[in-house]
Amino acid sequence: MTEFLKVVKYEEAIDRLKACFPPQGIKRCGLLEASGRILAQEIVGSEDLPAFNRSTVDGYALRAGDSFGSSESLPAYLTYQGEIKMGQAAVIELDRGQCAWIPTGGMLPIGADAVVMVEHTERLGDDSVLVYRPVGPGENLMLKGEDVSQGQTLFTPGQLLRPQDIGLLASLGIEQLDIYEAYRVGIISTGDEIVPIQVQPGPGQVRDVNTYALSAAVKDCGSVPNSYPLLGDNFQDLKQGVLQALAENDILLLSGGSSVGIMDVTIDVLLSIPGAELLFHGLAVKPGKPTLAVKIKDQLVIGLPGHPVSSLMMFLIICRPFLIADRKQRIRVKLTQNIASQPGRDDFIPISIREEKDSEPWGRPLLGKSGLMSILALASAYIHIPYEQQGVLAGSWVDAWLF
Amino acid sequence: MTEFLKVVKYEEAIDRLKACFPPQGIKRCGLLEASGRILAQEIVGSEDLPAFNRSTVDGYALRAGDSFGSSESLPAYLTYQGEIKMGQAAVIELDRGQCAWIPTGGMLPIGADAVVMVEHTERLGDDSVLVYRPVGPGENLMLKGEDVSQGQTLFTPGQLLRPQDIGLLASLGIEQLDIYEAYRVGIISTGDEIVPIQVQPGPGQVRDVNTYALSAAVKDCGSVPNSYPLLGDNFQDLKQGVLQALAENDILLLSGGSSVGIMDVTIDVLLSIPGAELLFHGLAVKPGKPTLAVKIKDQLVIGLPGHPVSSLMMFLIICRPFLIADRKQRIRVKLTQNIASQPGRDDFIPISIREEKDSEPWGRPLLGKSGLMSILALASAYIHIPYEQQGVLAGSWVDAWLF
Repeated sequence: MTEFLKVVKYEEAIDRLKACFPPQGIKRCGLLEASGRILAQEIVGSEDLPAFNRSTVDGYALRAGDSFGSSESLPAYLTYQGEIKMGQAAVIELDRGQCAWIPTGGMLPIGADAVVMVEHTERLGDDSVLVYRPVGPGENLMLKGEDVSQGQTLFTPGQLLRPQDIGLLASLGIEQLDIYEAYRVGIISTGDEIVPIQVQPGPGQVRDVNTYALSAAVKDCGSVPNSYPLLGDNFQDLKQGVLQALAENDILLLSGGSSVGIMDVTIDVLLSIPGAELLFHGLAVKPGKPTLAVKIKDQLVIGLPGHPVSSLMMFLIICRPFLIADRKQRIRVKLTQNIASQPGRDDFIPISIREEKDSEPWGRPLLGKSGLMSILALASAYIHIPYEQQGVLAGSWVDAWLF
Repeated sequence: MTEFLKVVKYEEAIDRLKACFPPQGIKRCGLLEASGRILAQEIVGSEDLPAFNRSTVDGYALRAGDSFGSSESLPAYLTYQGEIKMGQAAVIELDRGQCAWIPTGGMLPIGADAVVMVEHTERLGDDSVLVYRPVGPGENLMLKGEDVSQGQTLFTPGQLLRPQDIGLLASLGIEQLDIYEAYRVGIISTGDEIVPIQVQPGPGQVRDVNTYALSAAVKDCGSVPNSYPLLGDNFQDLKQGVLQALAENDILLLSGGSSVGIMDVTIDVLLSIPGAELLFHGLAVKPGKPTLAVKIKDQLVIGLPGHPVSSLMMFLIICRPFLIADRKQRIRVKLTQNIASQPGRDDFIPISIREEKDSEPWGRPLLGKSGLMSILALASAYIHIPYEQQGVLAGSWVDAWLF
């Protein structure tokens, strides 16, 4: 049994992974397929949107000045010139004292500079309209180019495309765009005490949790998980399994094989592959000291701890940020209690969040039993206590990452 | 043109939708397929986990009492009895003054009640071990049944299955489980000014944003979007399109056809279908007054506003909560500025979130131009000002729903 030769700091590990993370493929896809994916190109507004001045209400287009001074008791009196039709050019031209019916979304006629809502008007017969409230120039209008102006940079590569982003792209008529391809992530559980979940464990044995939890976590990142059969610590079997998974994936997650004991075989196997380079072996991180990373040409193998909670947490901490545009995930919470932390180690601690009405969001650390999967199932986020800190005081604001 | 006959409150609309939301199918699936889906059954622990007392460290199993009083200068001296092998029953029995090597995850031998970490020990030759630090009973152990105890209710129907939940299910050997089937949601854009995104809009025309934004939003909820060609306000065409979409979906979203003007035709079409029942028509909600819902037997048709921002917002506000187990979505923010709101209306306002180090999370309302899709693309969440409130003061804590 060998001890970890040189334990690496969390930040250093992240830097090394960042420098070596496999390049991501780019593919062209249709707009609908792009939702929930990461944009791989810049998007510049190709035209003004809206392309014309549009009404945002149902009402009458007019010159704002004609409504000035109007009130319930003394309405303005305008001449009705006709109706603007949806989806058609506004052929009516308005002069002083004139108005035209305009529907929401309709094109503002020439001469008009505002719209008064129908609720504040009254139609008198065929040719006149009373206006009971003044409107300012530009009121109830969306002006040409106000949403998007031609030449404006709207999105840059790396942006997660949400429904409203897809909507904005649709409004520009963008049918096809470049997105990053999903990473293919191979998953192999190792460990002599692990049995497939279909098997009733004998004394001293436990079921293979990591293949399932890691596959779900990889899928949750928008990547494609590929799971492989359990492997023991036999050099030949392990090497064959690793080579097969590397041939079929961009990234390989090995779990269990990096704990002291069978990690020697794992490292021997990985470093026996031509081009392999050890990035780190042993992290100053709790939970997850026995974590390793090996770069093999353009590919990356990450060895995660065998313990399921540590394995999942380390995946979330050191892999997820590279797989996913980490939006939506970070929130702020105020701690309910002091947390002690050993300096010289980055601590990651699961928390539950209590969000009461009229109050700040409180984060309660799930200490003590945090190694239990059932506790992780109760947690809604985790917090990070950096390397140099001895702890965090109750009432402090901290970042929390949602599971 | 008819006005809204009776505008309904947001809460009332939600209650009516809740009572009429289509029943969701249940299907049996494999554990991996279940990740990210909603559980449709109760899960009770079928056995104790762990099934045996396990070590959480590499070290020596011993009787805690034998380590009491030990220190760097005065270590305890124990007799080495052999090694516990991973994945095997612990065949060694320990007596007073004895210890055995145990790896992380190994099964605690009979007679032992604690494990001392290898870092705090020294092996002397073949048959003795020095212990430099006392351990208490139960230290460095995960006890039988501590993670899951037999008969314990672990999950109830309606739970979103996250990676750690999948892990917990794997640890119990659950290979198959019941999940709710995804809703099939039909999407039809209507409106005379709308053209397909492939077409260059003429004067007064705009591209069909809603089909794309709503499809992306439906997909984001874990449901299956099915989009249909654009329809105009012709009764026969609209009816044929609606009937086709109803035959192929659980829920139908119509956008545009509910605004004053062409909404009459939409309502006529919907109410001409046998079994149709109007749930509401007109909501006291900003944005989205022109929203309607019709129940048709077990199905639901929701008419959303034609304006893309209102359409997407109303989908998020009144449909998403029913499609998705709305976890992760709600956070708390402190408002940067006063927001005025008209009483007698529920207001939903997009915000951006500023999360500075050592500070509370601040929410900045994106007012004024909130009808622009480009502003929604900058927003990260929205807040809700209830019906009876006249506004919210700067510095107040409010709920925010992440997009």
